[in-house]
Amino acid sequence: MKIISPTILLDEVKCRANIKRIAEKAKRNNIIFRPHFKTHQSHEIGEWFRQNKVDKIAVSSLKMAVYFAESNWNDITVAFPVNKLEIDTINLLAKKITLNLCVVSPETIVFFNENLKYKINIFIEIDLGYNRSGISFDNNKKTNEIISLISKSKLLDFKGFLVHAGNSYKSKSIEDIKNVYNDCIEKIRKLKSEYNNVFISYGDTPTCSVIEDFKGIDEIRPGNFVFYDYMQCKISACKPDDIAVCVACPIIDIHPERNEIIIYGGAVHFSKDFIFMLDNKTFFYGKVVKLNEKGWEITKNNMYLKSLTQEHGIIHAESQEINSFKIGDVIGILPVHSCLTCNNFSNYITLTGKTISRL
Amino acid sequence: MKIISPTILLDEVKCRANIKRIAEKAKRNNIIFRPHFKTHQSHEIGEWFRQNKVDKIAVSSLKMAVYFAESNWNDITVAFPVNKLEIDTINLLAKKITLNLCVVSPETIVFFNENLKYKINIFIEIDLGYNRSGISFDNNKKTNEIISLISKSKLLDFKGFLVHAGNSYKSKSIEDIKNVYNDCIEKIRKLKSEYNNVFISYGDTPTCSVIEDFKGIDEIRPGNFVFYDYMQCKISACKPDDIAVCVACPIIDIHPERNEIIIYGGAVHFSKDFIFMLDNKTFFYGKVVKLNEKGWEITKNNMYLKSLTQEHGIIHAESQEINSFKIGDVIGILPVHSCLTCNNFSNYITLTGKTISRL
Repeated sequence: MKIISPTILLDEVKCRANIKRIAEKAKRNNIIFRPHFKTHQSHEIGEWFRQNKVDKIAVSSLKMAVYFAESNWNDITVAFPVNKLEIDTINLLAKKITLNLCVVSPETIVFFNENLKYKINIFIEIDLGYNRSGISFDNNKKTNEIISLISKSKLLDFKGFLVHAGNSYKSKSIEDIKNVYNDCIEKIRKLKSEYNNVFISYGDTPTCSVIEDFKGIDEIRPGNFVFYDYMQCKISACKPDDIAVCVACPIIDIHPERNEIIIYGGAVHFSKDFIFMLDNKTFFYGKVVKLNEKGWEITKNNMYLKSLTQEHGIIHAESQEINSFKIGDVIGILPVHSCLTCNNFSNYITLTGKTISRL
Repeated sequence: MKIISPTILLDEVKCRANIKRIAEKAKRNNIIFRPHFKTHQSHEIGEWFRQNKVDKIAVSSLKMAVYFAESNWNDITVAFPVNKLEIDTINLLAKKITLNLCVVSPETIVFFNENLKYKINIFIEIDLGYNRSGISFDNNKKTNEIISLISKSKLLDFKGFLVHAGNSYKSKSIEDIKNVYNDCIEKIRKLKSEYNNVFISYGDTPTCSVIEDFKGIDEIRPGNFVFYDYMQCKISACKPDDIAVCVACPIIDIHPERNEIIIYGGAVHFSKDFIFMLDNKTFFYGKVVKLNEKGWEITKNNMYLKSLTQEHGIIHAESQEINSFKIGDVIGILPVHSCLTCNNFSNYITLTGKTISRL
């Protein structure tokens, strides 16, 4: 295939293996696998999940729910607190599919009672300590109030608790990830005992990648694992070889005297998430890999994406590495955060040259 | 207007004033005003420049050049090193418009001699110390080599030197910005004397906003000033009242106990550029303003966007501030970096409710 500008390459084999691995793990645990589609946002990649018997999905916006409802996903959880202002879209979707929404306040139930036209399922989002959205796991008063309001509502069915262990992203080892999981599962067991074995939908790629035994959980909802990225490698949730997307960028300038290669590929392509190296001082936006005819190859090198402006990227490269590149070559970069990077592109190009569109 | 999801509000009055201010400054200096259109990327906003007698523009990709050529911009500089791999697009544009491209290596001239079909103008990008792309200001050997190659080429016309004082973004005061400019102008004067009063195209919003006398420069090429943003405020290039774009985001959860408001508005809307507060410890992604019927109002408050994940944003708010908000309200945020934030939206909505599309 001919690359002429920043392009997301997708290794279909790796991506399908990532999907299969988690699908089989869920099957072994006899729990529901409801993948989060926020990372790939693609009808076609959705089909690869369907081939693994997936028929329920999660998304993080109503816009995505509308998109996936178009390709016949009929059971969709919007794993994001209800945005009341989009009630018209909620009604449109609720008429058509099994729609599961996340509630974090009693007022939203009151609002639904006045504005909802069709049946929907309600999850209460419970915050297990990540401190983003959701009701704190120990705020039984608020949770009870919502459950009580739901029970009196004709169009609302209480489905369970939705949790997201986003703090697993701060892990530095498999041990750290296990500790986050163990802390969550302890809180979940308490909730299960207090709330009549309530259904638990559980998120996040790091724990779903590392944990083998999901006793106490009814459904897993990871998303990023479909592609993984360098951040997931750093926290030990995957190996570099599991990463299924690579940004191919043309080289536009080279500065051997500064150990720098300048690429066409900037913040509008990679976004600006970064991670620190093991020294905790040097940060980077992506790791350079060697492109070859079959895709990319992870070689031992010290090359990384060190800086980004709107359209320019600056790669650090050692002297012996820099000499093998020239202006007009295309360089491969494994992104630090695939969700944000892929969001900047409207297509993936597979290693066999197939174009796969996304929302 | 009814906002239901993250939306870029555009204050047309402020935007037109920003355009007029720089256009008049260029006129007073008797230099060419070639605005960089990378920030707004909109046909309609382009017309506001045309009303200020602008007929030459700069862009940072061939994709943008193609887009603006569609709305009859006939003199376009791609202020970005030539990406040889896009030669087909270069030929298409060169046939149609006056195309000015930036060269940083002799090999590109050799490549043009073999592959170019129509006349183009060549700028040599000179790096005055920013250390991104371009030939170092003191590398006369390389610059001379390129000029000599251009002079032998039939289809290439040497236009001058293109410089970008990107290091002005590290400024903390007007004084700092002036120092960056003075350092640049000293190098430019030396280049002018060495290269027969060579034409100088000069970029960057901070210096073009602060400096009044552009003696020694032939053309200015600022871009961000069309909207400005909080980063430009911090470095004293503008006042908060000059910022012409504001992201309106629905509130989806509130946590008074943590002094936090959760909004629908995340990294896919704001991108992830941040700046530090005066304490140099606290960083933020945007500053909260009060939305009203006429637009937004800059009030004294301690509210800022402190954290971003894919679709969620977390706003810090003091106790007395937090009480005035409820779930379902829409909150306004002045972005830290308008170029990257606007790039995540396909439309602007003006304060009179008009939709303005962008590339």
